[in-house]
Amino acid sequence: MRIYDIIRKKRDKEELSKAEIDFFVEKYSKDEIPDYQASALLMAIYLNKMNKQETAYLTEAMMNSGEVIDLSAINGVKVDKHSTGGVGDKTTIALAPLVAACGVPIAKMSGRGLGHTGGTLDKLEAIPGFSIEMSAEKFIDSVNDIKIAVCGQTASIAVADKKMYALRDVTATVDNISLIAASIMCKKLASGADAIVLDIKTGDGAFMKTLDQSFELAKEMVEIGSSMKRETIGIVSDMDEPLGSAVGNSLEVIEAIEALKGNGPKDFIQLCETLGAYMLVSSQIATDYEDGVKRIKTSLESGAALDKFKEFVTNQGGNPKVADDYSLFPQANHIVEIKSEKTGYINKIEAESVGISAMVLGAGRETKEDELDLSAGLLIKKKVGDYVKEGDTLAIMHFNKEEKFEDAKRRFINAYKISEEKAQPKKLIYGVVTKDGISKF
Amino acid sequence: MRIYDIIRKKRDKEELSKAEIDFFVEKYSKDEIPDYQASALLMAIYLNKMNKQETAYLTEAMMNSGEVIDLSAINGVKVDKHSTGGVGDKTTIALAPLVAACGVPIAKMSGRGLGHTGGTLDKLEAIPGFSIEMSAEKFIDSVNDIKIAVCGQTASIAVADKKMYALRDVTATVDNISLIAASIMCKKLASGADAIVLDIKTGDGAFMKTLDQSFELAKEMVEIGSSMKRETIGIVSDMDEPLGSAVGNSLEVIEAIEALKGNGPKDFIQLCETLGAYMLVSSQIATDYEDGVKRIKTSLESGAALDKFKEFVTNQGGNPKVADDYSLFPQANHIVEIKSEKTGYINKIEAESVGISAMVLGAGRETKEDELDLSAGLLIKKKVGDYVKEGDTLAIMHFNKEEKFEDAKRRFINAYKISEEKAQPKKLIYGVVTKDGISKF
Repeated sequence: MRIYDIIRKKRDKEELSKAEIDFFVEKYSKDEIPDYQASALLMAIYLNKMNKQETAYLTEAMMNSGEVIDLSAINGVKVDKHSTGGVGDKTTIALAPLVAACGVPIAKMSGRGLGHTGGTLDKLEAIPGFSIEMSAEKFIDSVNDIKIAVCGQTASIAVADKKMYALRDVTATVDNISLIAASIMCKKLASGADAIVLDIKTGDGAFMKTLDQSFELAKEMVEIGSSMKRETIGIVSDMDEPLGSAVGNSLEVIEAIEALKGNGPKDFIQLCETLGAYMLVSSQIATDYEDGVKRIKTSLESGAALDKFKEFVTNQGGNPKVADDYSLFPQANHIVEIKSEKTGYINKIEAESVGISAMVLGAGRETKEDELDLSAGLLIKKKVGDYVKEGDTLAIMHFNKEEKFEDAKRRFINAYKISEEKAQPKKLIYGVVTKDGISKF
Repeated sequence: MRIYDIIRKKRDKEELSKAEIDFFVEKYSKDEIPDYQASALLMAIYLNKMNKQETAYLTEAMMNSGEVIDLSAINGVKVDKHSTGGVGDKTTIALAPLVAACGVPIAKMSGRGLGHTGGTLDKLEAIPGFSIEMSAEKFIDSVNDIKIAVCGQTASIAVADKKMYALRDVTATVDNISLIAASIMCKKLASGADAIVLDIKTGDGAFMKTLDQSFELAKEMVEIGSSMKRETIGIVSDMDEPLGSAVGNSLEVIEAIEALKGNGPKDFIQLCETLGAYMLVSSQIATDYEDGVKRIKTSLESGAALDKFKEFVTNQGGNPKVADDYSLFPQANHIVEIKSEKTGYINKIEAESVGISAMVLGAGRETKEDELDLSAGLLIKKKVGDYVKEGDTLAIMHFNKEEKFEDAKRRFINAYKISEEKAQPKKLIYGVVTKDGISKF
């Protein structure tokens, strides 16, 4: 078998066989195929596409290119959750204790972020003392004992994905449904969960800008998961404006804690309820979606979820007092209100611009080497549909790098589209995709 | 400007600007763009194509990536000839002295071959003493004095083309009309001729397998040449069966000499007449095509062309006696007749298989490192349309590597398609493309 012939086949719109896809992924991850041949193949895949079968083979090969975690020592149906990423997406921080308190074993391997804010790991590290380093035994014991543990994704998982993603990133071959789906799913599958709930973000601040693309990606990933015998559910949710109010690492953890206390922003709570209910269904704890929602509400209202959060933080060396004393989080030197320059209804808040504004303040990494300022970020006070007058506070910015403030402020204000007329309210959840089909709301 | 954005544009079927194409070619030839980005762009170009304007910009940028030869010190209209390559194509060896004897200044830079047989340089080196090394002064003086000189293509010409071709070769991005046209034309244009006659081979033994592709390539190249103010004419000629009788380096030179003596195979003579006539027209020596043919016939029949050949060989250090004593050429140890295993009409001789058969005998290089056996090759005795009986001689093979003979023989015999019925005779010349349009014959 020769990589040349594999490139030629895909170039000529032919279907690749399992053996050919395995050959490419295995040899490429072992540096036995040079980048210049891999990038030609990736561009041919980008332009001529892969069908469902090829995408499933690619995912499996990428999963097998590294370690495949065995979580069988953990009791119960392990459910993992994945978000395609958005601005202000602190969902895991609240959702994990919420469903763990309902009995779902949460054995989560998470990553760091490259983008507007840090990833879940970065956010958790805003909690003083919290550690994501853990032996395999402690990880498994923790989930068996308290139903929840979050650790760093090992570098030995899905080795081909890391190499391939870095190459796609510099050759304009990222935005292809098959390649995106395989990249996400190979890591989820290698992480060993029995069931997977996917939160596919759609809109301005998301990877997928249109609803059609988002449902297509959801369908592709659900099909891959199902073909690998993992119950997989995809939720398509809005990312046209930032989720909740907080954007930035400490600020988002505080917002997640507030949510567990029943004070969360409406959209954020609704998303946690929806995803949580499907996780309970996947884990065979709830009989159906409605039962799932009921259990999530109880977990929240009873305080069980907040207790579970503290237990989780304590177990990983963190100070649980942060839940009651937010001054224990890293604090910014500057806290400044951002005022509206217009009067009218807010019809749009461009999520991506808000994310970049937070990144400029220090909340996110532009390159892998950048260090995060865990205290930096912003709290949104006015969301889409709200009426504002000139001079009203749109947001509060937290930062240390004074020299970055003007740039961040300008980007933030420009993200707001304010006009005389009130726009139609938007949905938060657009639909659900399961192996049985798509339900659009 | 970033190469990423150039890749993305072509990926999205957008037209690239002159500045973008210049940027890519210049940076890539200076190793400032890595192969993996170049190969992604080349695959995007392969699949999404380039328009005429982009192809012309690419050709010009590739021409300017290396030395551009100035032949203005040579008197008269310099005409270059290029063949896209076929099996048994020894045209230059006969054609160059044929037109030089008519007064056309032939200042030819030629290459070595990678394929069934060597290139023109390899063939000329079968002549004892012949050298393709020459100073620029001697090259120019020779053409002014005796109207003909052939030297090796300098490595400093079209630097980007060499790098790009090597990359295309391993990434399945060779067979794209724009990339092929640009690759050929940038070298021809950099070589400094005022006019260019192109012999675009079509059929089984050619790069372009179909007539449509061949005319498309001819049109593309003629347009590039014309846009660069060089009179350019493209002839589409048959390569469904090998040209003439000889395939192999020494054997082909001998056949070319025989042609200059008036004993050449019919198809080979016809091709030389056609190409020669257009070269005379381009050089403004003949008033029209018919006048050109008349002059070529005179050059041949008067012996002027053969004398010019001897003068040319002598001028470059070769022994002119080879023209009268073929035993001065490298000789093979084994000369074996290949017999027909069938009776009937020859309807097809798969040129590519014949070429590979000759290569197996040692006449061609499979990799750049292979050494040629200049004496090896074969002489075809029966061509398409001929009637043969079982046991009749199809060809005579010349070789030294005994161990390769059976493989070569089998390939050769399998190349012959013999049946009861006589096929329609095929054309040698399918048409001519000029800047004014296409004339199909």
